[in-house]
Amino acid sequence: MQKPLILVTNDDGITAPGLRSLIHFLKDLGEVVVVAPDSPQSGMGHAITINSTLYSKKVIIDKEKGAPNEFSCSGTPADCVKLGLQELLDRKPDIVVSGINHGSNASINVIYSGTMSAAIEAGIEGIPAIGFSLCDYGWNANFEGCKKVVQTIVREALTNGIPRGTVLNVNIPKTDGGDPKGIRVCRQARANWKEAFDKRTSPMGKEYYWLTGEFELLDKGEDTDIHALDNGYVSIVPTQFDLTAHHTIQEVTNWNLNE
Amino acid sequence: MQKPLILVTNDDGITAPGLRSLIHFLKDLGEVVVVAPDSPQSGMGHAITINSTLYSKKVIIDKEKGAPNEFSCSGTPADCVKLGLQELLDRKPDIVVSGINHGSNASINVIYSGTMSAAIEAGIEGIPAIGFSLCDYGWNANFEGCKKVVQTIVREALTNGIPRGTVLNVNIPKTDGGDPKGIRVCRQARANWKEAFDKRTSPMGKEYYWLTGEFELLDKGEDTDIHALDNGYVSIVPTQFDLTAHHTIQEVTNWNLNE
Repeated sequence: MQKPLILVTNDDGITAPGLRSLIHFLKDLGEVVVVAPDSPQSGMGHAITINSTLYSKKVIIDKEKGAPNEFSCSGTPADCVKLGLQELLDRKPDIVVSGINHGSNASINVIYSGTMSAAIEAGIEGIPAIGFSLCDYGWNANFEGCKKVVQTIVREALTNGIPRGTVLNVNIPKTDGGDPKGIRVCRQARANWKEAFDKRTSPMGKEYYWLTGEFELLDKGEDTDIHALDNGYVSIVPTQFDLTAHHTIQEVTNWNLNE
Repeated sequence: MQKPLILVTNDDGITAPGLRSLIHFLKDLGEVVVVAPDSPQSGMGHAITINSTLYSKKVIIDKEKGAPNEFSCSGTPADCVKLGLQELLDRKPDIVVSGINHGSNASINVIYSGTMSAAIEAGIEGIPAIGFSLCDYGWNANFEGCKKVVQTIVREALTNGIPRGTVLNVNIPKTDGGDPKGIRVCRQARANWKEAFDKRTSPMGKEYYWLTGEFELLDKGEDTDIHALDNGYVSIVPTQFDLTAHHTIQEVTNWNLNE
């Protein structure tokens, strides 16, 4: 039997430690092929490259025997998945795995996440997909605590399939290398970012801003991803790309739209 | 009574005809303030600018009496909303209106849409928001058929409020300037893009790609946005940013995750 083909991508770029760890963790589960951005793409949301050109090249980062085929791409995470599926892979992957992101994509962060946009892009194409993120922004984060989590969830996804129309948003609490307490299936916590713009003046006298902000949790539920993470558990949120708020259609239909 | 404050933005840039028409249509309904990208941002999805700086300046495009205050911004549509709310406006807007986009944001296009990301950003902040798009990509598109639609829907939204946790994705069929047949509240049609990369070689001998593709409808429902548009009706899809696929949580919970 052919080994499962696993397409790996991310948004922190092809040399990011989170991606290198992910490749390492997935090697036992199938044949890994990497198509990842040649530079960091954090905060790119579901951007795609339509007004400029895309470059891609085969790269060798890992010289070990059995190292995966790898391609870097000048585009966004969503571009990487599109280009991988259409041009670079010689068969359809069994699963697309994105990450491991350096930093949380729990709660409302999913909306801004390049990591998750890659998974969603694959989901739209009908391919099972998972995004993994570690709640530690550091480039030197310890990814060892992610190993069993990644292997368990990817193995279960390959065995059971992922519900149609959804992809998995997995967030992993920061540990000192030990395993998290367990894995919980959750809903996305309601939250927003309280923005604060840091206004400065350039050496040439021009004013500019840095976007900064603070995460503001607006949800006391115990079934949320934030609650799981705060208590040392991994969160899985099944995430959909049908954005219709079906439960509100009736309300809006009652508006006076067609008199 | 104070007039409603309407924050207007888009993703095609501050000089785009769709935005200029939108401002014109909204003048009767309230005080308009514009914060829009200084260059086109199509396909930016929900990108935000976190690794570089943002510039903004007051601009005068329309010299008529009563013309709105306008600011251009170097960032994405989501950045424009964040900067507008936090820095540029002196009170909280009653509604954020994004568009009118040059081209459809119906069905799966909502995922890639900068126009809708601006509306969603406002929705996350708890402000009623609507994205308008005309199904005509041309820079010379005729926006006259949008006038009554925009005024009716914004007036109803100001009167009724928009259901919590949702924003409206409004798509308007192309007309020769006449009104569409009517307005329908719909669900997002299931679809994807069948990508085709156009591979070329630069004058310097380097290979590159253009992303192209064809819209592929996977949905025969008569309650979808695409069905409404194909029959000459305006579609409104109430769109949510809680991406949790609540109906699949039980299924994933049954996986063998914590043995």
